Amino acid sequence: MTAVLQLSLTFAFLCLWSCITSSSQCKLNDEDTFKILIATDIHLGYLEKDAIRGNDTFVTFDEIMKQAVQNEVDFVLLGGDLFHDNKPSRKTMHCCMEVMRKYCMGDRPIIFEILSDQAVNFSHSKFPWVNYLDSNLNISIPVFSVHGNHDDPTGADGLCAIDLLSCAGLINHFGRSRSVEKLEISPVLLQKGNTRIALYGIGSIPDERLYRMFINNQVTMLRPREDEDGWFNLFVIHQNRSKHGATNYIPEQFLDDFLDLVVWGHEHECKIAPVRNEQQLFYVTQPGSSVITSLSPGEAVKKHIGLLRVKGKKMNLQKIPLQTIRQFFIQDVTLSEHPDLFSPEQPNVMLKVMDFCQEKVEEMLEEAERQRLGNSLTPEKPLIRLRVDYSGGFEVFNTMRFSQKFVDRVANPKDILHFIRHREAKDNIKAILSHPTSEVLQLRVEDLVKEYFQKAEKNVQLSLLTEQGMGKAVQEFVDKEEKDAIEELIKYQLEKTQRYLRERRVEATEEKIDEEVKGGAFKEDLAIIRAKAHRDRSDSVRDDDLNLSDEPADIAVESDEASTSAPTIRGRGRGSRGTSRRGRGIYINIHKHI
Amino acid sequence: MTAVLQLSLTFAFLCLWSCITSSSQCKLNDEDTFKILIATDIHLGYLEKDAIRGNDTFVTFDEIMKQAVQNEVDFVLLGGDLFHDNKPSRKTMHCCMEVMRKYCMGDRPIIFEILSDQAVNFSHSKFPWVNYLDSNLNISIPVFSVHGNHDDPTGADGLCAIDLLSCAGLINHFGRSRSVEKLEISPVLLQKGNTRIALYGIGSIPDERLYRMFINNQVTMLRPREDEDGWFNLFVIHQNRSKHGATNYIPEQFLDDFLDLVVWGHEHECKIAPVRNEQQLFYVTQPGSSVITSLSPGEAVKKHIGLLRVKGKKMNLQKIPLQTIRQFFIQDVTLSEHPDLFSPEQPNVMLKVMDFCQEKVEEMLEEAERQRLGNSLTPEKPLIRLRVDYSGGFEVFNTMRFSQKFVDRVANPKDILHFIRHREAKDNIKAILSHPTSEVLQLRVEDLVKEYFQKAEKNVQLSLLTEQGMGKAVQEFVDKEEKDAIEELIKYQLEKTQRYLRERRVEATEEKIDEEVKGGAFKEDLAIIRAKAHRDRSDSVRDDDLNLSDEPADIAVESDEASTSAPTIRGRGRGSRGTSRRGRGIYINIHKHI
Repeated sequence: MTAVLQLSLTFAFLCLWSCITSSSQCKLNDEDTFKILIATDIHLGYLEKDAIRGNDTFVTFDEIMKQAVQNEVDFVLLGGDLFHDNKPSRKTMHCCMEVMRKYCMGDRPIIFEILSDQAVNFSHSKFPWVNYLDSNLNISIPVFSVHGNHDDPTGADGLCAIDLLSCAGLINHFGRSRSVEKLEISPVLLQKGNTRIALYGIGSIPDERLYRMFINNQVTMLRPREDEDGWFNLFVIHQNRSKHGATNYIPEQFLDDFLDLVVWGHEHECKIAPVRNEQQLFYVTQPGSSVITSLSPGEAVKKHIGLLRVKGKKMNLQKIPLQTIRQFFIQDVTLSEHPDLFSPEQPNVMLKVMDFCQEKVEEMLEEAERQRLGNSLTPEKPLIRLRVDYSGGFEVFNTMRFSQKFVDRVANPKDILHFIRHREAKDNIKAILSHPTSEVLQLRVEDLVKEYFQKAEKNVQLSLLTEQGMGKAVQEFVDKEEKDAIEELIKYQLEKTQRYLRERRVEATEEKIDEEVKGGAFKEDLAIIRAKAHRDRSDSVRDDDLNLSDEPADIAVESDEASTSAPTIRGRGRGSRGTSRRGRGIYINIHKHI
Repeated sequence: MTAVLQLSLTFAFLCLWSCITSSSQCKLNDEDTFKILIATDIHLGYLEKDAIRGNDTFVTFDEIMKQAVQNEVDFVLLGGDLFHDNKPSRKTMHCCMEVMRKYCMGDRPIIFEILSDQAVNFSHSKFPWVNYLDSNLNISIPVFSVHGNHDDPTGADGLCAIDLLSCAGLINHFGRSRSVEKLEISPVLLQKGNTRIALYGIGSIPDERLYRMFINNQVTMLRPREDEDGWFNLFVIHQNRSKHGATNYIPEQFLDDFLDLVVWGHEHECKIAPVRNEQQLFYVTQPGSSVITSLSPGEAVKKHIGLLRVKGKKMNLQKIPLQTIRQFFIQDVTLSEHPDLFSPEQPNVMLKVMDFCQEKVEEMLEEAERQRLGNSLTPEKPLIRLRVDYSGGFEVFNTMRFSQKFVDRVANPKDILHFIRHREAKDNIKAILSHPTSEVLQLRVEDLVKEYFQKAEKNVQLSLLTEQGMGKAVQEFVDKEEKDAIEELIKYQLEKTQRYLRERRVEATEEKIDEEVKGGAFKEDLAIIRAKAHRDRSDSVRDDDLNLSDEPADIAVESDEASTSAPTIRGRGRGSRGTSRRGRGIYINIHKHI
């Protein structure tokens, strides 16, 4: 029932976008309407040494920032992972700064104010104020960003790559906390005309840790003291949204229900159309990454950034398709489903299978060619992935020769094919899970994982060990009907290993925290139930706070909402920075989670 | 005779500094006088992980830039090696940008113009104009810098750490060439009132390569077409100044004699008082590093930066002692020179020697304490080095216990002592050099070096293998009277190895070039003679060009030099950048070297 309602609301919301025609455009750009470009997971520098794909992230970042200029947005909001590597290469850093200096500086006036205390919002910065109020920098488009898990602060100084941009005056890094035990989030308070936005953010934190903070009631969202309900509450988060293990994600239900829109980073699939959370009554938009970092179905979804308009408490999110994204086609074939074409016993079956696969790839290439026609911004060579299920006695073939055929036409010739074998792998998991319970309890999770891999065949292992492939593959093999503790543990441990490999960093502090989290995993399993109980109890109270229209968000062209101060054009003098001071003491601390 | 003249001139020059009293100060700061802060080899990030010395470079950089502000200089001129590591850490980059944004931005007007074509001067930059003319940046003190060997461009993109600062608008990186075979140096032409400076620079190039370019007549210094003799010609170079092997340095005689002042980077010893080159009739100032990177006598010299004033063709260089430099005391003891105290045969001689060394260190510590008295900026713990010559049958002792005694009072407790043994090592070299000539010719240089090290005792090896110690130690051991080809070759090869270790980078291009240079070494030995002959021949011609006063450089308070344009105050508008365009085509190419 809920699901149906949610779908229909989303559909209604989506319909709105078609209404944004040139005739109505002017109404959307009035002096009370914030225009915000939303993007996330740009992963600058991803595969930068790849001869074909090396520049993809830079080209797309340029496109995104150009969109910001063309759409005359008030600011850009990024959801983390601007950089792919924690320590970006010189080239990556240089490209990034070049694009930002090119598009974010200039004489276009900025017509929104900061009402909060910037020294609090940007307390970790050596220049703790928003860049566009710095009289030495002529900023035309401020960029606000939280950090992601790829570009999070590390080392004794707790600096991240984004801090370099911040120090150079090119970005406003917010949503940062020094504490690893509790969060107190002071929003950046923005005002344009009569519209006021409270911008909350949490830079990436290991999911288990943030999960624990939430259930231990250690996450506090401060709210403006004045006219608490007069703000559009925008929240940026960079965490797992989909469930990876019991505590390795952040349930939407954890987030405060006074929020109006949550911009969810980290998840790469573009689900930018805001979806209403029927429990919390806020919307969630998941812009997804602007580069394909894994050859999985989620990344094959058409990629967009968003043009968010906020007027009063109403909003509208316009999808902007990205033109420079490399095309990506993915297809699954199951050999055993084609008994008319080949069988494992046939002589030369491998050659036949190879021809079959080649045909499939050719099909995808033709489709790519058709779709790319006339779009000069799209890179020429597409990404192609053919997932071949060779279960049922088939064998894998050498992909070297296969790759050679596509080396000039495909961006990823070396890993077009991905062999998977379903049932046998599942049997391996089952074999592990068949240990008597008493024996299992004496085994370490690491041993179980090791045993699994020893039983899995060599080729399967190799395909599993590709980036991000490991966790997903095991998930596929896991028999969904045997959801017991061991399975959960294996998944949990694999997720941890996978994340470790991906992030390529081992911080002493992180390790310590992870240890703590690991120890407390079972405690948290109980705690989530407690958290849910809390949620249910507080639901009645929350309905009173509810201020959002029941209708899908829309732009109210006329507004009768009160405003305490008129919009001002930012001046160049130092004095203008002083206006921020009035934000001091503006927060109240009434909304603690749970 | 020449040497005596040089000394007396230097003395006269030095005397000038005492004349700069507060009464004459106003005369030195008039509207025709350029004030330039000169510094080099700041080596940001050197030993940044050292618990005691980690922040030294950042503190001193802050002091230097603060001096620039306090002295209201027109610009800062750096001679390379702003960074110690080719890929500076995030912390180092952050500290650097913080200091530059803090001191180089602000509302103080900049009252000198750029007359040259900036697109040529900064052609490698994505923002090819001087930062203070960028209407989006409010620069109060522009910094001009060449790159050094520590922070030189690398990789396919040919970027260096300084380019990141340049991209952020914090520095003006000049003196850069993409060609590895020839240099054509277009000066940055600056004008303040009636004074015009032609600023030339060459970013670090492997010495052999630049040496070869010079002798192959591939270095061209372009000169302004208009009023060629009306410019003060300032040149910044970052190369070996002292001779390391036949072609592993740049003789001052290679530089064009139209120059007025050469700022020599790379050499760490502070010899900032300009010294007149009597052949070329220019002055050379060697500011030296602002951090001690090796515990050698050159680094123990008091460290300064320079405040250079230029008016018309006259100049004055005021030494500014740096206050934040860690003190460094170095002393040599030769055990065999104290037969009254101990002899190798004595029982417990090692304990006696240890006591003796401890006493010497205590003396240095007391002296450090005395000198530091009242100077709160000087770091508390000094650097101490005691070089112990244990030749004559003495043995080294374990320095662990010795270090422990000074761990709280010395900044470098682990390497206070440096054991050397003279005569035996010299014998080893002699043994190698005693190979019959026919045999030597069949040996590779590498073999000779290897043989040398095999013959040297283990302890000597260890002490030799400290940073920068290797080349110097071998030089000490080399019998100066046996200056033959083999010795030169060993030195040459050692220098190459040493440089390789120090720079910690192997670039494919560099390697290729080095190979070429190696192959051409003997050719160059001949070529230098040819170069000298050329020099002698052209001397008569050059006298005509000479425009420098015979008197030591001074500030001419009154000037009747013609000027074609009045100084302008820099505007904030984009239009102001356009003024630079008139520099186009301003150069003529008459001064080719040799």
